Amino acid sequence: MLISIDGIDGCGKSTQVGLLSGVLGARRIQEISPSRWGKRLRATANPSLAQQLAWFTADRATLAESLEEASGSETVHIVSDRSYLSAVAYQSYDSGLTPSFLEELNRSIVPEYDLQIFLHVPVTTALVRIEARGEAKDWCEHPGLLTWADRVFETWVSMRDFIEQVDGARGIDEVAADVRDAACAASLRRFGRIVF
Amino acid sequence: MLISIDGIDGCGKSTQVGLLSGVLGARRIQEISPSRWGKRLRATANPSLAQQLAWFTADRATLAESLEEASGSETVHIVSDRSYLSAVAYQSYDSGLTPSFLEELNRSIVPEYDLQIFLHVPVTTALVRIEARGEAKDWCEHPGLLTWADRVFETWVSMRDFIEQVDGARGIDEVAADVRDAACAASLRRFGRIVF
Repeated sequence: MLISIDGIDGCGKSTQVGLLSGVLGARRIQEISPSRWGKRLRATANPSLAQQLAWFTADRATLAESLEEASGSETVHIVSDRSYLSAVAYQSYDSGLTPSFLEELNRSIVPEYDLQIFLHVPVTTALVRIEARGEAKDWCEHPGLLTWADRVFETWVSMRDFIEQVDGARGIDEVAADVRDAACAASLRRFGRIVF
Repeated sequence: MLISIDGIDGCGKSTQVGLLSGVLGARRIQEISPSRWGKRLRATANPSLAQQLAWFTADRATLAESLEEASGSETVHIVSDRSYLSAVAYQSYDSGLTPSFLEELNRSIVPEYDLQIFLHVPVTTALVRIEARGEAKDWCEHPGLLTWADRVFETWVSMRDFIEQVDGARGIDEVAADVRDAACAASLRRFGRIVF
């Protein structure tokens, strides 16, 4: 199965990706990947929209074969820290590109996910968590962008059957239980049984 | 050196790419390449703008390392049948994306070309040549698009020092002589000598 966990910065994605990939015995991957394009993204302080579109698309393309192996598979499992859904939410902010256009663009590169989890926390909670890290703020960690991305994620949950929302503003174990339940439900829906 | 020949369909690019790569002892490549993304482009009758943007970007990214080796090199030479300049000209047609945005996006993926030749023929001439092939028309071979692309190419010639226009509406040998001269001039400008 191909599963992603998306959400705004500070929602607790990475922790839950680690836990779920352990439970599933899944390979854990991350967007941005360590490809030459991913490295350029990470090395650029404030990438323009054109640079984001170029590098995220090229970076995602390097993952496509792996993602295709896992998509719809009963034996190969990947849990991804972010997916194209984050591009849909973030790159549509004040950019002139619509979420639908970005979805079509990215779905031309990657296969269907068996499950995409939107880990929801209020923007105010996310900002407190980001502050608490004490690191320099990322270019994508400002309130206007996070609020926009949050709305797009919520809208896409209501539009797409394979996207499930999980409340991330609780203790790690409670969240992990819901994430696991969502993965089980997706497996039952897709294969009629638990495949992991 | 990294050299491309661009222009509208029917301008005689492929013939001149073949001749110039022979003269230079250069590797000959083509955009669209035979990558998985190039194959999808060729297999799709009428790709949407989102599909074009995704597949052309991903396809171009697979060529980036080769292009980087040739760019600014006195020993490694590539002559490319089309470059990102064609994306700038074609993908901006009636799309809401500006040529400048497409240029920035693509230049985030590929290095600088030592020379880009715009092989110019009137749209009417190109259409006659396309008709004469007797093949089914491509999605990018209609007058509105070709006229737009021609204007963008001409505008970019006037804006960028490393793009040279060559009149393609003449005999093959006459055109080839001018193409060769442009390559020599670019080599002198870049390295102070003829490197091929």
